[in-house]
Parts: sequence; C-alpha cells; structure tokens
Amino acid sequence: MKRLQEYNFPDDLKSMSEKELELLSYEIRDFLIEKVANTGGHLASNLGVVELAIALHRVFNSPKDKIIWDVGHQAYVHKILTGRADRFDTLRTLDGISGFPRRKESLHDMHDSGHASTSLSIAAGYAAARDLSGEEGEVIAVVGDGAMTGGIAFEALNNVGHSGSKIIVILNDNEMSIEKNGGGLSQHLSKLRASKAYLDFKKQLKKTLRGVPRVGDSLYSGFEHIRDALKYALIPGGIFESFGFKYIGPIDGHDVHELIEVLHLARALEGPVLIHVVTKKGKGYRNAECNPSKFHGISPFDPCTGELRSPSKETYSSAAGTKLVELGKENPKLIAITAAMMEATGLDPFRKAFPERTFDVGIAESYAVAFASGLALSGYRPVVAIYSTFLQRAYDQIIEDVCIPGLPVLFLIDRAGNVGNDGETHHGVFDFSYLSHMPGMTVLAPKDGKELGAMMDYAMTLNGPCAIRYPRGSVTDLSFVGDYKIDGGSEILKQGKHVSLVAIGKMVKYALEAREQLASYGIEAEVINARFLKPLDMEKIISSVEKTGNLVTIEDNVLTGGLASNLLLLLSEKGINNFRHLPIGWPDQFIEHGDVEQLFKRYGLDADSIAVKVRDFIERKA
Amino acid sequence: MKRLQEYNFPDDLKSMSEKELELLSYEIRDFLIEKVANTGGHLASNLGVVELAIALHRVFNSPKDKIIWDVGHQAYVHKILTGRADRFDTLRTLDGISGFPRRKESLHDMHDSGHASTSLSIAAGYAAARDLSGEEGEVIAVVGDGAMTGGIAFEALNNVGHSGSKIIVILNDNEMSIEKNGGGLSQHLSKLRASKAYLDFKKQLKKTLRGVPRVGDSLYSGFEHIRDALKYALIPGGIFESFGFKYIGPIDGHDVHELIEVLHLARALEGPVLIHVVTKKGKGYRNAECNPSKFHGISPFDPCTGELRSPSKETYSSAAGTKLVELGKENPKLIAITAAMMEATGLDPFRKAFPERTFDVGIAESYAVAFASGLALSGYRPVVAIYSTFLQRAYDQIIEDVCIPGLPVLFLIDRAGNVGNDGETHHGVFDFSYLSHMPGMTVLAPKDGKELGAMMDYAMTLNGPCAIRYPRGSVTDLSFVGDYKIDGGSEILKQGKHVSLVAIGKMVKYALEAREQLASYGIEAEVINARFLKPLDMEKIISSVEKTGNLVTIEDNVLTGGLASNLLLLLSEKGINNFRHLPIGWPDQFIEHGDVEQLFKRYGLDADSIAVKVRDFIERKA
Repeated sequence: MKRLQEYNFPDDLKSMSEKELELLSYEIRDFLIEKVANTGGHLASNLGVVELAIALHRVFNSPKDKIIWDVGHQAYVHKILTGRADRFDTLRTLDGISGFPRRKESLHDMHDSGHASTSLSIAAGYAAARDLSGEEGEVIAVVGDGAMTGGIAFEALNNVGHSGSKIIVILNDNEMSIEKNGGGLSQHLSKLRASKAYLDFKKQLKKTLRGVPRVGDSLYSGFEHIRDALKYALIPGGIFESFGFKYIGPIDGHDVHELIEVLHLARALEGPVLIHVVTKKGKGYRNAECNPSKFHGISPFDPCTGELRSPSKETYSSAAGTKLVELGKENPKLIAITAAMMEATGLDPFRKAFPERTFDVGIAESYAVAFASGLALSGYRPVVAIYSTFLQRAYDQIIEDVCIPGLPVLFLIDRAGNVGNDGETHHGVFDFSYLSHMPGMTVLAPKDGKELGAMMDYAMTLNGPCAIRYPRGSVTDLSFVGDYKIDGGSEILKQGKHVSLVAIGKMVKYALEAREQLASYGIEAEVINARFLKPLDMEKIISSVEKTGNLVTIEDNVLTGGLASNLLLLLSEKGINNFRHLPIGWPDQFIEHGDVEQLFKRYGLDADSIAVKVRDFIERKA
Repeated sequence: MKRLQEYNFPDDLKSMSEKELELLSYEIRDFLIEKVANTGGHLASNLGVVELAIALHRVFNSPKDKIIWDVGHQAYVHKILTGRADRFDTLRTLDGISGFPRRKESLHDMHDSGHASTSLSIAAGYAAARDLSGEEGEVIAVVGDGAMTGGIAFEALNNVGHSGSKIIVILNDNEMSIEKNGGGLSQHLSKLRASKAYLDFKKQLKKTLRGVPRVGDSLYSGFEHIRDALKYALIPGGIFESFGFKYIGPIDGHDVHELIEVLHLARALEGPVLIHVVTKKGKGYRNAECNPSKFHGISPFDPCTGELRSPSKETYSSAAGTKLVELGKENPKLIAITAAMMEATGLDPFRKAFPERTFDVGIAESYAVAFASGLALSGYRPVVAIYSTFLQRAYDQIIEDVCIPGLPVLFLIDRAGNVGNDGETHHGVFDFSYLSHMPGMTVLAPKDGKELGAMMDYAMTLNGPCAIRYPRGSVTDLSFVGDYKIDGGSEILKQGKHVSLVAIGKMVKYALEAREQLASYGIEAEVINARFLKPLDMEKIISSVEKTGNLVTIEDNVLTGGLASNLLLLLSEKGINNFRHLPIGWPDQFIEHGDVEQLFKRYGLDADSIAVKVRDFIERKA
C-alpha cells in the first residue's frame, strides 16, 4: 500500500474511486493519531473533518478554488492532501510546519489564520475580488458550529447574504465548539439535526441526483422544488435563509459519497450557499470520541491508551481555578465567565461548585466582557477568564464598557506571553501593551503560582477593573525567595549594587537565574519583582536605579508599550535620566511557533541569554 | 401650558391621558429642535424615538425597570423624561450634560454608553444579576436596526436566546443606520415591514387586547395562538425566533397608544422578547426627515431653514475623500470600505465615482477589516476609513488578519485625538497606543490637510499595513513652513538651540505657535514634525536632542504607549540618555465632553499651555 507521503495530492484524489477515498480516510486517521501522539497538537477536530477535507479537494481545484479553514487548527488533513504529509514529524516544532494554515508553506493555504470566526469574512473578500476581476473559481469557508457564534461570523453572514456574492460556507457541526457550546444558534442546529425530514430529504436528493455524472444547472430548479416543499419541516426558523443563504443539510459529514454529491450541487448553485455538515469530533479514535475536549489540543500521548506522556502538573490555569472556588465561597456575588474555554482556563471546579454563577458564552469574547459589565453594574463581581490572544477581541469593550464606567471586573488572562507551539497567531505578547494605556486599569503579573492566588485576593479589594496575566504551563514556585504580600508595591528579591533587574511575571525566575550567573562575573545584580505593570510602583525601582545606575527591564511581552516603555515614561516624568537602560522582551516582529524554551533561547529571553546581555551591557559601560 | 422643565418626570407620565401624551410628543419635538439648533448634537435619531421614550417611561418604572439605550445618542428624550430638560442648554458643552447616558447624571442612566451594539449584552448582564438575586424588574434594551448588525449584538441574541432570561429588546427600525444600511438583516426587516399580514396582525392584536386594562397572563395563550397562525406569513425566516426570542411586530413607533399596549404585552410575556418598532428618523422636523444623515449629528443650525450656522469648510474627512478619488483613478485595484460612515468619513465622492469598488459594511468594524484582508490577499488595495474610537472594535483583526500576513491595507483613521463634544466614549486618543505595538504597521499623522494627501500617496508605495490618523474638523494649512516630501522621515520646520519640540499630527501647529511665544522669553525652540509614529525617524530627532539637551514630545494621544513612550524606548535602545524630557499629551484618565479648544486648554495641550510648560521646563533646569 502506498504511504501518504507517496501520493501526489491533491491531484491523485481526482482519479480515485469512492472506495479508495473511503480507504484513504482510514489511512489518514491512522497517520494523524500516530503523528499527533508524537508532536502533540489538535487531534479531535482534525479526525472529524477527514472525509470533508477529502471531498473538498476531490470536488474543488485548490488553489484556484479557495478553501479557507476557520481558526485553522483543523487544517491538518488539508495539509496532508496538499503535499505536506512528509513534514508531519515536524508539526508545530521550531522551523517545522505550523499547526495552522500558513501561506509561506503552501499555495493551498489561503490565509494565515489562528483566531476563530473570521473565515467567512476572508472568504467574502476573496469572493468580492473574484467578482470585481471577473474571474472564475469558488470560495469555500469551512467553519465550526462553535466559531459560528462569534460576532464577526454574523457580520459576515449579514454582508454576504446581502451582496449575493457566491461563497460556499461549510458549517461543520460537531455539536460542540471546543467545549459544550451554548446559545440559541446551537439549539437551532439541534433542531435541524433532529428534524424528521432529514432522512427523507437525503432520499429525495439522492433520487434526484442519481445517475447524473455532474450536477448542473438543469437540476437546480428541481432541487429548488424539493427544497421548497420541505422548507418549513426541514428548517425551523431558518436563520441562514433569513440572511440570504441557500441552506443545504444536514449532511452526514463522514459519508464521502454524500459529501461529494452535495459539494457538486453547491458549486452549481448561484449566490451564497451554506452546507450544514454533521461530524463527530475525534471520529475514528475511540479515546478522542469519548473525550474530545482532552484531545482538542493535546500534548504528546500514548496512542494506545490516550494517556499523556508527561502527566500534567499544576498549571497557572488550575491554580487560578482552585483559588477562584475559594473566592466564590467567600463572596456569593462572584461570577465566573469564560468564552468556550471552561476546562482550559481552569474554571471547571468553579462550575461544579457554583453552576448558577458560571457562564460559558461560547466564542464571543466581546459579549463576555460587555455581559460582565452589566453584572458589575448590578453589584456583582464578574471574573472573566480568557486567553491573552483571544481577549484582543474585546479590546473595545474593555475600554468602553468596563474602564469608562470604572467597574470592578477581574480579567484572568491565561496563556499570556509567548505560548510556544501555536505560534504567531496565539502568542499573548501584546496584553501589557493593550491594557496599560487604559485609564483606571490595574495590571498585574505573578512571579509564581502562589503569587497568582495572592494577586486574586488583592484584586478583590479593588473597586475598579483589574487584569492578572499569567503564562501557559506549570506553575513556578519562588517561595524560597519571595513573599506574597500584595499591597500595590513591587518587591526586592535580591540586593545588588551593579545593576537593577526589574522583571515581571514569569521573567522573575529567569532574572534570578541570570543573577546567579552574573555573580560569577563579579556582577552583583539587584532583582526586583515589579508585580504591577500598572500602576507601576516607582519607589523601590527609583531607589535601586539611583543606586546602580543600570536598569534592565525583563518582560514576556513586546517591548513597545510594555514594561520598558511604561517605566521609561514614568522615570522621564519624574525627571530621572541618570541611568542606562537595557530592555529585554520580545522584538517588534511576529514570533514563529516552536517549543517555548527554544523560542526564549532564540530570541534571547532565557536566563543564559539574559546573563550574557546584562554582562555585555555592564561591560560596554566600562 | 406647562413647560417641559416644570413637569415631575417620569412620575407625571403615569397620570397623563393618551391625548396628553400625544401632545407631549409635539412639545418634546419643538424643544429638541430649538435646543439642538443651538448646541448641535444628535437630532434625527432623537426625533424618531419621542413616542417610544414616552411609552417606555409610561409603562415601565425606571430605574427599577432598566432601560438601556444602545449607542446612547438617541437618549435625549429619555433625559428630558428623567428630569433633565432644564439642563438642555448645556448639552454636550464643557461641564454640561452629556450627549450620551451617564450614570453620574442620573439614576435612570444604566450605562455610560457611546459605542453601538452593546445594549443587549449590558441588558443580559443586568438580567442575569436580577435572576441570580431573585429580584423583580424588567430589563429593556433599545437598539437601532443599524446597531443590530454589529457582531456583539448577535453574540448577545445567541446567548440571551439560549439562557431564556427575560429581557425586552426594542428593535428601533428606522430603515437605516446612520446611513443606508445594507446586509441580509436589513432585507429581512424590509420583508417584515412589507408583510401583508402586518395590518391584519394589528387588527387581531387590538381586538384581542380591547377592553383589557392591563394585559395579563390570561391573554398570553391567546396571543400565542394568533402568533402561530400568522407566524410564517408574518415572519419570513424569523431570525429572532430562531434565536429563541418571541417576536412582536412590526409596530408603528409613532403611535403612542399602540406602543403602550405592546409594551404591556411584552411585560406579561416570559423569556426574551423582541419588539420590532418602525420609526422615522427626523420625524416631525421636515428638514431632518428629508435629510436624516445631515441631521444625525449636526453642528448648530438655523431651526427654520436647517442651514448650518457656520457653513463647513474643508475638513480632513473631505480632503481624504477627494484624494481617494484621485488614487482610485490611478489604481483600478483600489477599494474603499467603510462601516456605516460613508458621508462622515468623506467617502461619498469615491462611491459616486466608483460604486462597484465601494463597500459600506454597516456597523461591523471587525468584518470590515477581515474583509479587507481577503481583498488584499487577492491583490486588491483596500482602504478602510473608520473613526479612531470605532476602529478599536477591530483591534484583533488588524493584528491577526492584516499585520500577521503583512497585507497592504490602508487605514484612514478619522476623528483621531480628542473629538470634543461627544466625550469620553468617542475621543480617538488611544490609536497611537494600540497601533504602535503591532509588528509591521506603519503609523502616520499629517500636520495639515495637504500632508494627509501626500501621506496617502506614500502609503500606496508600501507593501504592508499602514495607518494614517487625522483629527475631526477643518484642515490646517502649514504650507508656509513645511514641505510635503513624505519619504519615511520627519521634517525640521524651525531651527532652534534650546529645546526640541517633537510634535506629530495636529499638534505641529500648536508647537509652531508655542515656539513664537517662547521666542519672546528668549527660548529658541526647534520644531520637528515627526510625521511617522512608526517607524520613528530617529536621525533628525537624535541630532536635535543632542544639540538642545531638551526634548518635548507633543501628541494628541494618551501619553502611555504613544509618541513619548515610543521615542523614549528607541532612545534608550540607542543608549542616548543625556537629555531631559517633557511629555505633552492626554493624561491617563478619560476626558469629558466639551468644546475641543476648551478641552485642550483645560488639559494643557493648547499652544499657550505648551509655551508655559516648556518655559517652566527650561527654567527648572537653570
């Protein structure tokens, strides 16, 4: 049997029989499980779209026809079918292939995606360009039912429906987003799935299409007739038709034959079309079928048992979740809100303890924040737990609906800083920059897991907006050196006279390690844990800088707008300029994917690099 | 006849007859026209909701029942009906009442709003809090059909529909947003309005309700029956019902009697309810009815003729629009995109010249940017014209969908800096801060109208994202002192040896004026027009600072993350610290509404204040 690497995809798909395509789906699943077990990655969603990706590349001619994968973490099969099977051992590793579509990897990747719900908008742009140019070709957006709840997806439905531009939306309904998805849309889809007309519709469709080699315009009117007859039984409410889309579905997303037929039909139709495809997340791998949330994004695991290779330790997420339960017991007004990331942000224990005070709003970060605003206006204490990169979606609501009214909303910003393998679309390296210019916002970052808890206690004493940002992964423990009295100030962890290392968040550990190395060069570094990005506690920093004359800021954020620039501005406002400064942080560029430690090393943010940089900085002076 | 100021609103509404309420609507309209003619403000939308606001305050008991006005610029009638008529001479003026709901003004203002489409989310938060507390009271969101197209409104529909929480959404359908609104939703609403069943429905409803003093639960099932019978005729597609809302409508929004009946009905229903109210923007003032766009937000005008008191001069918006037509002629790939702000951003001439290359996406800024991304991926040259404060909505898409793929999208950022009378929710003082940390983004701000054109030419030479931000109002002309060769660098406008004034955008003019004043104190200031916030042209600035030893940065942006901090970071990276620095810009707080000149004076950003500050700064040294 041919190995996947030996095919000439996507061309070879065109000549395969349907039986061969079905067989291929088994090979691809085996391949995916084997590869992702080694590298880690997004498994369940990719297992769910194997037949869909096969059918898409069979029916359409990529890249002339443009297939746009929403979010992009479910594009692994697409990558296999566009000639990248031989690179799957490098998936998500430094300089290897990305876990998301990347234009530099392949002409078949139409967008460098990563965030949910934008595929319809990108597709609309491609379609408008095609229409203006008078070119040919289909534009296809594949979007999950979870991503469909994001506001921008509706904005696109509304605009595309109005324009009448031909795009094909494949709504990949796996009956959940990353975790169980709520919302009226989800109930609407359930109704569609449960419709008694489903099977009848399929039978009718098959009868109509049988024996026709390629579905053409001649069949269009026939189909319209069937559709009209079944319309109200089939589509209770018909959201998509209301927006101006032709609706086809629901379709069994694991039936290659049916998928191919329907895609031919969609191609023959005019105007915007939505195909409702029902798939099973984790399909074909029992461990993932039973626990799709665990296998959504997973670390390397044993393919036989599904057990993780390195059992997870306590993470910042779980530390935040544990603490939140404690706070919820103390304060009956405390509310937890997440956007389709209940388990990932550690909120599950809170949900179990206080189900009525827990809200999962789906992929809808803007709503999450404005909803929190309404709760806070009523005297509640909302805590919004969202990844740093996804909170970018709520930038406007944080300013307008939380900071302007000055409401006590606590943002638990998970996956802040460089997140490693997910790459440029997911690094949370902008939050210091986008939060610190918001008037009234308090911004903190803990040095370790215990300080995270102490900061959450502190946040509860504030009567205004507060954000605590912390990294992905296992908690650090720096209790041997620091204390946990959060009172608005920074803390001096180590005294020194030659240079002031002002670090924040996870970088405190690296600063301490760098200090050890510097000592061997005779450089005595003072290490300050800033704790607060905003308001910055200037007193200890100024004393230290006036003593050493050398300031090094160390942050897991882009330099622009982060700790370095905030500190410089405040020092300048105080008229302090008798010091030299070395800023350490992420440069002004997007950082690729790779192992976190490797990336820190490559960009000079690990302890070794910091030590070398500081030594050079001190020696340059001499 | 009683003057509006003499009523005890909202209490007095409860005892008025329907005839008296109708009469009141005339008085309120006269009052609005008279007052807004003097102060300027949002007129057309307020004239459209007179009866609606009366009916709401008649039926509901604010503030126990919470009425949330989306956007908020249509809350004037609400302000009149909650005891603020006597302050309308101060509308939108410094220290006067705001043009938007403000909690500090009144217990009846439930949220400090300003941006569109969030009222449903805020209402959902209020409703969740009420349900958790087991309290009573209705929560009502009043939202326009234009604002309904914003993604967050759909996110809220989806979540509220799912939760089943009781909120009443009043969809105020004035058949347009600020300007003509496109989109599938708008077509859907047109169908609803045109439905032949409309009149029948009203007749049925009236018959059902006749003689019942207060609509109670007993009528609920009867109503359901009527509704079911008419359902499909009445609601083609039924978007709102699909989301889980009970739909009532369409209702004549200028019929107080009918509005009162329907609001009683809505109160009696359980779960989420949407009332579709049809109103006429500008209703009762012929000038505004015929030209609602002009009277959306208007400067002081003659109430008889509708003519502006100070005819408008050339603005930055119109300069941008004129230039864009020129660029559109040169480049057939140039596309203009706006979000419901065609006239306001000056795009009308472009639309007239190139209708097929102009896209008004409605209030949907996130979509606008991702759509532009799709066009740019296809080789087109999208230009996105949006106000600075509203572009905050697309922060995530600018990073993820434009900057990461490095696409040549040009952002024309109008109303940047302090915008004056609209106040804290509308000042565009964060854009330097939220754009400058985006890798690959070029950020410019012109010193005058002509430089805006030159910068647009320059932007067309770039092969990556670019933002040009410019203020509200009439163009400046500094051609007597500057040139227009935009080549990536700053320009020295005036030589000097004591202090370097590095200004950007509209602040260049103030810097020049301050220089004149400083000269009379014997201080010779060098004035540099930075032009580029990013990448900052350091060469001239460094030479100047090394010469004078005194750096003053002057920007119409918050200091945090703006010109000052960007410049300090770059100087620090270059090891330059032998200078003193005075940053001039907006402080770290939200700035109230008022006349632009007054605000600049109050916060020390006008030429006089700059001169005084710089003099003190120089003298402090001596």
